[in-house]
Amino acid sequence: MKAPGMAQPERVENGSFCKQGSDSLDDELVDLVSAEQDLPEDVPYLDRDHTAGYSNGFRGQVASAGLLDLLDEGVPGVGTYEDFNTIDWVREKSKDRDRHREINRQKKQSDLALLLSLIDAFSGWLLMLLIGLLSGALAGGIDIAAHWLTDLKEGFCMKGFWFTHEHCCWKSNETTFQRRNKCPQWKSWAELMVGVPEGASAYVVNYLMYVSWALIFSYLAVILVRAFAPYACGSGIPEIKTILSGFIIRGYLGKWTLLIKTITLVLAVSSGLSLGKEGPLVHVACCCGNILCHLFTKYRKNEAKRREVLSAASAVGVSVAFGAPIGGVLFSLEEVSYYFPLKTLWRSFFAALVAAFTLRSINPFGNSRLVLFYVEFHTPWHFLELFPFVLLGIFGGLWGALFIRANIAWCRRRKTTRLGHYPVLEVVVVALATAVLAFPNEYTRMSSSELISELFNDCSLLDSSKLCDYISPGKGGERAANFSMTTNGLADRAAGPGVYTALWQLVLALVFKMFITVVTFGMKVPSGLFIPSMAVGAIAGRLLGIGMEQLAYYHHEWPMFKGWCSLGAKCITPGLYAMLGAAACLGGVTRMTVSLVVIMFELTGGLEYIVPLMAATMTSKWVADALGREGIYEAHIRLNGYPFLEPKEEFEQKTLAMDVMRPRRNDPPLSVLTQDGMTVEEVEGMISDTSYSGFPVVVSHQSQRLVGFVLRRDLVISIDNARCCQDGIVGASRVLFTEHTPSHPYQGGPPPLSLRPILDLSPLAITDHTPMEITVDIFRKLGLRQCLVTQNGCLLGIITKKDILKHMAQMANRDPDSILFN
Amino acid sequence: MKAPGMAQPERVENGSFCKQGSDSLDDELVDLVSAEQDLPEDVPYLDRDHTAGYSNGFRGQVASAGLLDLLDEGVPGVGTYEDFNTIDWVREKSKDRDRHREINRQKKQSDLALLLSLIDAFSGWLLMLLIGLLSGALAGGIDIAAHWLTDLKEGFCMKGFWFTHEHCCWKSNETTFQRRNKCPQWKSWAELMVGVPEGASAYVVNYLMYVSWALIFSYLAVILVRAFAPYACGSGIPEIKTILSGFIIRGYLGKWTLLIKTITLVLAVSSGLSLGKEGPLVHVACCCGNILCHLFTKYRKNEAKRREVLSAASAVGVSVAFGAPIGGVLFSLEEVSYYFPLKTLWRSFFAALVAAFTLRSINPFGNSRLVLFYVEFHTPWHFLELFPFVLLGIFGGLWGALFIRANIAWCRRRKTTRLGHYPVLEVVVVALATAVLAFPNEYTRMSSSELISELFNDCSLLDSSKLCDYISPGKGGERAANFSMTTNGLADRAAGPGVYTALWQLVLALVFKMFITVVTFGMKVPSGLFIPSMAVGAIAGRLLGIGMEQLAYYHHEWPMFKGWCSLGAKCITPGLYAMLGAAACLGGVTRMTVSLVVIMFELTGGLEYIVPLMAATMTSKWVADALGREGIYEAHIRLNGYPFLEPKEEFEQKTLAMDVMRPRRNDPPLSVLTQDGMTVEEVEGMISDTSYSGFPVVVSHQSQRLVGFVLRRDLVISIDNARCCQDGIVGASRVLFTEHTPSHPYQGGPPPLSLRPILDLSPLAITDHTPMEITVDIFRKLGLRQCLVTQNGCLLGIITKKDILKHMAQMANRDPDSILFN
Repeated sequence: MKAPGMAQPERVENGSFCKQGSDSLDDELVDLVSAEQDLPEDVPYLDRDHTAGYSNGFRGQVASAGLLDLLDEGVPGVGTYEDFNTIDWVREKSKDRDRHREINRQKKQSDLALLLSLIDAFSGWLLMLLIGLLSGALAGGIDIAAHWLTDLKEGFCMKGFWFTHEHCCWKSNETTFQRRNKCPQWKSWAELMVGVPEGASAYVVNYLMYVSWALIFSYLAVILVRAFAPYACGSGIPEIKTILSGFIIRGYLGKWTLLIKTITLVLAVSSGLSLGKEGPLVHVACCCGNILCHLFTKYRKNEAKRREVLSAASAVGVSVAFGAPIGGVLFSLEEVSYYFPLKTLWRSFFAALVAAFTLRSINPFGNSRLVLFYVEFHTPWHFLELFPFVLLGIFGGLWGALFIRANIAWCRRRKTTRLGHYPVLEVVVVALATAVLAFPNEYTRMSSSELISELFNDCSLLDSSKLCDYISPGKGGERAANFSMTTNGLADRAAGPGVYTALWQLVLALVFKMFITVVTFGMKVPSGLFIPSMAVGAIAGRLLGIGMEQLAYYHHEWPMFKGWCSLGAKCITPGLYAMLGAAACLGGVTRMTVSLVVIMFELTGGLEYIVPLMAATMTSKWVADALGREGIYEAHIRLNGYPFLEPKEEFEQKTLAMDVMRPRRNDPPLSVLTQDGMTVEEVEGMISDTSYSGFPVVVSHQSQRLVGFVLRRDLVISIDNARCCQDGIVGASRVLFTEHTPSHPYQGGPPPLSLRPILDLSPLAITDHTPMEITVDIFRKLGLRQCLVTQNGCLLGIITKKDILKHMAQMANRDPDSILFN
Repeated sequence: MKAPGMAQPERVENGSFCKQGSDSLDDELVDLVSAEQDLPEDVPYLDRDHTAGYSNGFRGQVASAGLLDLLDEGVPGVGTYEDFNTIDWVREKSKDRDRHREINRQKKQSDLALLLSLIDAFSGWLLMLLIGLLSGALAGGIDIAAHWLTDLKEGFCMKGFWFTHEHCCWKSNETTFQRRNKCPQWKSWAELMVGVPEGASAYVVNYLMYVSWALIFSYLAVILVRAFAPYACGSGIPEIKTILSGFIIRGYLGKWTLLIKTITLVLAVSSGLSLGKEGPLVHVACCCGNILCHLFTKYRKNEAKRREVLSAASAVGVSVAFGAPIGGVLFSLEEVSYYFPLKTLWRSFFAALVAAFTLRSINPFGNSRLVLFYVEFHTPWHFLELFPFVLLGIFGGLWGALFIRANIAWCRRRKTTRLGHYPVLEVVVVALATAVLAFPNEYTRMSSSELISELFNDCSLLDSSKLCDYISPGKGGERAANFSMTTNGLADRAAGPGVYTALWQLVLALVFKMFITVVTFGMKVPSGLFIPSMAVGAIAGRLLGIGMEQLAYYHHEWPMFKGWCSLGAKCITPGLYAMLGAAACLGGVTRMTVSLVVIMFELTGGLEYIVPLMAATMTSKWVADALGREGIYEAHIRLNGYPFLEPKEEFEQKTLAMDVMRPRRNDPPLSVLTQDGMTVEEVEGMISDTSYSGFPVVVSHQSQRLVGFVLRRDLVISIDNARCCQDGIVGASRVLFTEHTPSHPYQGGPPPLSLRPILDLSPLAITDHTPMEITVDIFRKLGLRQCLVTQNGCLLGIITKKDILKHMAQMANRDPDSILFN
């Protein structure tokens, strides 16, 4: 997923607050997003208060926060990041430890400080509670609103327009159990407009209204996204993964994104497009997390701590999407998070639970379940059934791999051709096609969640759905008369005409869903992938399940069924096949493993089915991995060129640090500062001549022995600050990075400028012979931005995260220039 | 837990194979264990094949393994570790990547190699399958055997001595449902010996037999441990944590340990001592994992890969102990593992499932459950009940913290006084005391698992246990006559005399268990802590639960009960209180959080009770943490001085690398080698004069510019090898670490010895100004053994893991000398 502006060729500055210094972004991209809107006004970006407060010189305001700010002393602005930069995890964590140490020191001195320290210690838990409450409430609201709008496509409640179909008929006296969704208060559009509930004209009216509403909803969704929050499109998970790995995208998790994503998600889901709300819910929860972080200085001011909160928030998102708190935490751990300490594990779990219980008390589905497709199976499975389960896994893997290829090809096409210039038109056209094709088929007309719910369902005797139209033993003729009813009357039965009708409708629905999802995912509306993938798999699984069931019914004497599936026994559960198919397809697309099994386990609530689930998801992952290593999120990260160092990908090449570092053999030598030999003018000259984001400081140009590292941003801010506010600093002043200012400072010249405070005295340095695999490991585990390369103690070069990503792309025969730039 | 020999003052060599070089172990301890037995014969230590094969010069044998060994070329023995050493994770992972790269290269060349590469890729999964099967089978065997022996303490089956009480009466026609454990085939010892089933003499006989069996079992257990496998004692979790963090303890996970631990665990559990089998099961599973690793070169030869397998094995252990596969994986992740990549997560999950299903098909409890105390509750809890739940949490936290203190004090006493010299006597005396005190009280006479099972149980109407002796409404007098029976007759009822008897017996049992557990944990028999802790908590919880129930019954008109607990309603479930109490106490002792909640969730199978569980465990952890930061495992690691770098503990001090590195200010300078200026004799002299485990190599003594790092062990082996097998290498030969051998090699002198191949060209170096918090982070995350310290590019000193541990101990005002040494 990417912002709409990204496809456009012109480079536009990312809002006025970024202008200062945006030309200096060597390491990171600047043209990732264009300012189609006035970002500074609209988007409360990740740490706006931080930068803005500092850049405007509001030191008083910041300092008034008192205790917690005392570590931000020094030159204002030093230690903050530009937009589209990578954070330095080591420095951030170090900052937090300083803060913590300071609080510990103070708490011994006064009671107020002790109280503040207690508040500080519990603020993390409080934050989690708030995130859980807010996200749960939002998810409940989204569910209710989407339910209502979806029903609006079909008709209208005379009791009040705000009732959904189900609520409308809920308390009606005229409904029976069999036809509980028919009641006089609920009028289809045909009844309202032409006055007849059935017949050709009614069908046409209903059809037209369905298509019109779909067009209106999708148009509104895309227009809102374009106008107010371009970052609200897509699933958001690739970007969140990138942000969690340490990248800064301002406004991606802001108030406007939250508001617009919530609204447009409802619209997009209701429009009937082949998309789900699970990915976007993760984005919504992360927005909540980020916004709530602003309440606590501890998290507002520290990019690393904030990312811990966001990891927990993504667990919350999955928790409310599937009603699976443990699965959500594992999803965050397995799929999304980059740095996931144990403390975060525990807090994520807490937040996920709070969110799930909030959602449950809102009870959006009226059944005190968190999701529409909660299932309970009662029949055990047989060992021989593992064979069809593995088949489903293979199907899921194949579909996952093919889907990723097709979707990426389509998204690349959108990026590179004129198609990308008409995002609104694209959405409307796809919505039109979806609605027109979906209406005639009952199984595509209903929302995907309802479809999944129906497919997962294990037919009971009273079930009125077409899929449960079995010939009951009583009326089934001589075959059925041969055996007595089993205890619950749920033996395998012959399929009736309704099942056969459902079968071919499901086949058509499968083909339709498979194609339409490829073009839908990646459009400029909020779009999740979980539900469409699960729908595809559930259809395939149910088809196979019914096939197996009928096979067992008609051929129960076959050797393969002998012993466990005699006549009159209940041996095949088609709903279980649907569930496994859904898991397999979702696994093929996202390559989730443990978290997927746990989510499904929480949906079904029985350890019983974990082995089939594992068989299906494992097969699916292996098949999909054999056809392409990347999951859909990694593929989209790659497509958009985000600077993301994949923690799962092993670096297999035998290159050394000296092959990757800059300067290369024929490049000009590395730009370095000396610790005491340069003047302010010379330093400024070097800054304006180069675009590096930092400079190593050495003892002297001759020896090249490394002293430390200084960031360009800190250097610029400090020199500007010194020039304006410090007496006697002129262009000829010497810049000193040494510990001691020389004893004869005014020896003829102007006073020197000591920049020791901004010098990082502990830059990590590796030798030129360090294998790249180890270097990559060090970058991943420590979260570095850059690393210096030495040979026999002398500085030789520098490796940045970007260099590593480019090198990895090169080694994998991919286009290295795609990284970090559009 | 520690080996019995550790308490003894004499330093004994750890087996003959360790003698060479054991004086050179500067970094690690050598006197951790004494050789009470012939270790080389008895104990198949962690990588015996490795060292032995190499040291004996059996290169042919090793090389014959073909493809997979090609990376171990060079001088034999180089790249292996001594016992009680820390592994170098970076080097191990690098070795594995080399191996993998080589396989990938070869697979393009021949079909055989392609096949081998496939086998290699799937060997991890196969290994997991085998570990799951073996551990599941062993756990099943342990359960059955312990059950049988426990029953043997009470009586004897006339149908066959191998039947347990339950099995004996299973098919007897003379049993009724009410008294299903009474049947004529099962004779108590009194019936067999004095011929009367009841009365004073029968009681005395039964009492004496109970005590005698307990003494026999415990004596056998401690004697077996002492004689054959001293490492088999204790829970094993502290040692496994240490091993997983990279320490090598040969034999700790060997065949003998496995065999003896399995047998003695059965004996110890059956003897009635206050201990559980959960921790030891983790140890047993890890032994299985380690032994099975020997089947696969990939894991046999690589210490880092082996530790991934062991992480998975510890998940397997908990999975079979509690029937909780997901909880087991989270336990491994949260509590035990040090390095837990995602691949391991998935594999652990697989292994844990296989083990759980193996155990289930063995069906040791005859109820197709994996554990004795599976529970299903049917009553919802009320919000106001959170108050007693939190009380249970506070109790659990208090008990946990006090237990840890008392137990550590007792263990320290055992270590430092003469008490430690009589481990057998100690075990027998404690067993005697336990048996004598336990027999009179029904709730202590039964095994702890049975007790927990009974306490968790939600009384049904037909329950015949004393705890369920409620006055049923029909006969309850005027109070009960006032209201009609509720649907299932399970309304809160007045306690009958049985409940009151049970109450005071439970109080006595609580006091008894609390004291006896403190002295039991840490004795020289296999002893887990989970079950005793849970028993204590379950008793406390049940007491509180019954209290609440009766309060609600008699005072249902109180405001606090109004609205949710009217007369005739079922509002309090004492079994739930017992479960929460168990969770709280276990949480207080081990400080587990997420994994504990998930284990309990898997035991009860309902999301419903997660909120009470979280409330109780969270409170418990907070209370316990306020009284002492360490869990029982960390406390035992500290007590035994294992070199374990706790990943959870934040380093809070503001010291710098230069404060920690050696040499200190007044020490002699660092022993360094120069890259081309030293002769073989000089190098040998330096080796024998010092005891460092490695030496930095510099350009020259003057410049001190760092070239690389060479390990003492590699150096010794290489020089010995060159002296014996390479022509012309004499004492005066120059030792070269440079890339190019000088062009005039024989300039008058003997040929030089190039040791470039054993030189680590990429030692990690940090600057002297690096804060220790970052240094500790680097050590933890990269798994380093040592790190060099430079200043302005010149080598200044070295920091080892031991220096860091000592420094951390010093900073926390603990005795730094306790670390690494007894």
